[in-house]
Amino acid sequence: MTKIIRPTLVLDKEICIRNIERMAKKAADQKLRFRPHFKTHQSAEIGEWFRDFGVEAITVSSVHMAEYFATKGWNDITIAFSLNILEIDNINQLAAKIKLNVLVENPEAVAFLAEKATQNLGVWMKIDTGSNRTGIDPSNTSLIETVTRKIAKSEKLKFKGFLTHTGHTYSAASTDEIFSRHFDALLKLQSLKRQYKSIFPDIEISMGDTPSATLCTAFNDVDEIRPGNFVFYDLMQQNLGVCSFDDIAVKMVCPVVAKHLLRNEVVIHGGAVHFSREEIINIDGKSMFGRVIINKNGKKIMLDPMNYLSKLSQEHGIIKVAQKQFKNFEVGDLVEIIPVHSCLTADLMGHYLTTNGELIEMMPKY
Amino acid sequence: MTKIIRPTLVLDKEICIRNIERMAKKAADQKLRFRPHFKTHQSAEIGEWFRDFGVEAITVSSVHMAEYFATKGWNDITIAFSLNILEIDNINQLAAKIKLNVLVENPEAVAFLAEKATQNLGVWMKIDTGSNRTGIDPSNTSLIETVTRKIAKSEKLKFKGFLTHTGHTYSAASTDEIFSRHFDALLKLQSLKRQYKSIFPDIEISMGDTPSATLCTAFNDVDEIRPGNFVFYDLMQQNLGVCSFDDIAVKMVCPVVAKHLLRNEVVIHGGAVHFSREEIINIDGKSMFGRVIINKNGKKIMLDPMNYLSKLSQEHGIIKVAQKQFKNFEVGDLVEIIPVHSCLTADLMGHYLTTNGELIEMMPKY
Repeated sequence: MTKIIRPTLVLDKEICIRNIERMAKKAADQKLRFRPHFKTHQSAEIGEWFRDFGVEAITVSSVHMAEYFATKGWNDITIAFSLNILEIDNINQLAAKIKLNVLVENPEAVAFLAEKATQNLGVWMKIDTGSNRTGIDPSNTSLIETVTRKIAKSEKLKFKGFLTHTGHTYSAASTDEIFSRHFDALLKLQSLKRQYKSIFPDIEISMGDTPSATLCTAFNDVDEIRPGNFVFYDLMQQNLGVCSFDDIAVKMVCPVVAKHLLRNEVVIHGGAVHFSREEIINIDGKSMFGRVIINKNGKKIMLDPMNYLSKLSQEHGIIKVAQKQFKNFEVGDLVEIIPVHSCLTADLMGHYLTTNGELIEMMPKY
Repeated sequence: MTKIIRPTLVLDKEICIRNIERMAKKAADQKLRFRPHFKTHQSAEIGEWFRDFGVEAITVSSVHMAEYFATKGWNDITIAFSLNILEIDNINQLAAKIKLNVLVENPEAVAFLAEKATQNLGVWMKIDTGSNRTGIDPSNTSLIETVTRKIAKSEKLKFKGFLTHTGHTYSAASTDEIFSRHFDALLKLQSLKRQYKSIFPDIEISMGDTPSATLCTAFNDVDEIRPGNFVFYDLMQQNLGVCSFDDIAVKMVCPVVAKHLLRNEVVIHGGAVHFSREEIINIDGKSMFGRVIINKNGKKIMLDPMNYLSKLSQEHGIIKVAQKQFKNFEVGDLVEIIPVHSCLTADLMGHYLTTNGELIEMMPKY
């Protein structure tokens, strides 16, 4: 095992593969195409682990990420980010080599695409099913009509159907609310599909964020799911009731550099440039950046939530410690921290060390 | 000029060099050693710009960063992060090649260092002057005595003096409060210096975060300053009253991908993986991740604070737009965003594009 001396993102490959297997099985059982989102792991090597479960089509969040995975042998990619028309040359170059799908949500982007696309492109319409981030409101029938018409008129563009990211499952107050938000989104897309089925017989529905793809079972008329975070899960998902601690495949390992008895705080090397500043609210109403696992007499012990990563500056992390645990931290110890949002932590760290001591690289930043 | 098509961190070299020059001049006028913190830019090339102003000694925030800059010709480096004893082999290797200073704040680390240091090392004592992040409380005289004794006893370790990061200037409610917090920190360090001067005649004081190094003029008995952020400044510093908008050397340039009239929102490609989730509170009491500059008829216009980057997910940014400005945003436009915290934004982006179209690389992540 490689000796860890610095903040390190440790990946448990066994848990990760179990997460992939479970989601692949669920998709198969429900007769859904499993098009996993690769923005969480951003790694060619981890991508390969999906192939054993029959995955051939993937989702990415940028043209740059599509370019990376295309060079790694993936030839059916959806860029699940509304079309950035400035990247048209890159999109055309990529679409000459692989099966590429893009997202549109306004007439400007479709008009531009219809004029400039030199290759066949699959085009999804991005629907806002309630997360209010971006996409077309499903009740805006005239806009949907305008956009579908423009797509249909173009020779190069093939209308794939309606796609949503039900991102408001992440702010659900309970798993019940995850179910209801997913179901509401599903009804909206089903209605659109029914409406356009006569004009576009191959029309599809694409949905399935990690909370709903993990928990929900209602996927009638859905054709594909695109979860991403499930590959690692994290504290946010555990906190939402979506996964258990045992399902979380990544942890930050950080050295202890100081202890402050008077305020029951332990200082680690591990800050905002390692974890990201994404937070959840702890049971004491304060910001929490991670839960803490210590090593005591060779045994790993997860501490209760009153021991938590409570503050971050660029390189420093402050662990608020319950009085009775304070003696269990020593300068030079390594502590494990369960990160709040694994996608952002992985993006910052840029690589993984597996529990078997293997280094796994990620996509370069540019 | 390189055509920007993706989220890009643009650096104005002229402003940056002016910032360096101004700080170097201030240090020279005050007879202070200027030991700039390189954690903000993390770039060998930008590091070179400091040499023209006589800079020979630098500060970094990790052993990894020290290793990087040592390979780039810097041979007098302070690692301004409390000693991580697990990195002792790397520290010894580095200290065999360059003049290296480390920070200690507890007897455990000093005892370890005294036993394991194979090379001469400068040792600063990290003092907590009120930011309550880490360091020794200046009133804890017995701990200070214990630590200095242990340093003095070791043949390899040379006690440099007392070092602080007055980080609570960042949470000051006014520039007056920056002055008073700096002055309070200064008094504490002066008192310590006076106390130990007879035992350690070469004893020094090191301080000077960006707010105090920029604004304050009281530096009696101080020997060096270590500001970092001033090289770029950012919205946080402008908001604190430390710099003007004209002093900010970096901006994110992001493409517009969608507009939502009903909620006066504009969607850009540019999210948490580009900006970081560091926020300041806007005049409307809401979280703000950046101020917005648009290009209108070839002229750059900075919009008022009611137009601001208001939400971030992994790749999406949402600009809240005042009604009358909405027509000034079009799909395919590039907008400029002044980031809240340039250190974290630069760390995420991993490179710069100068306004002259030159690519500037940063330190690799691992």
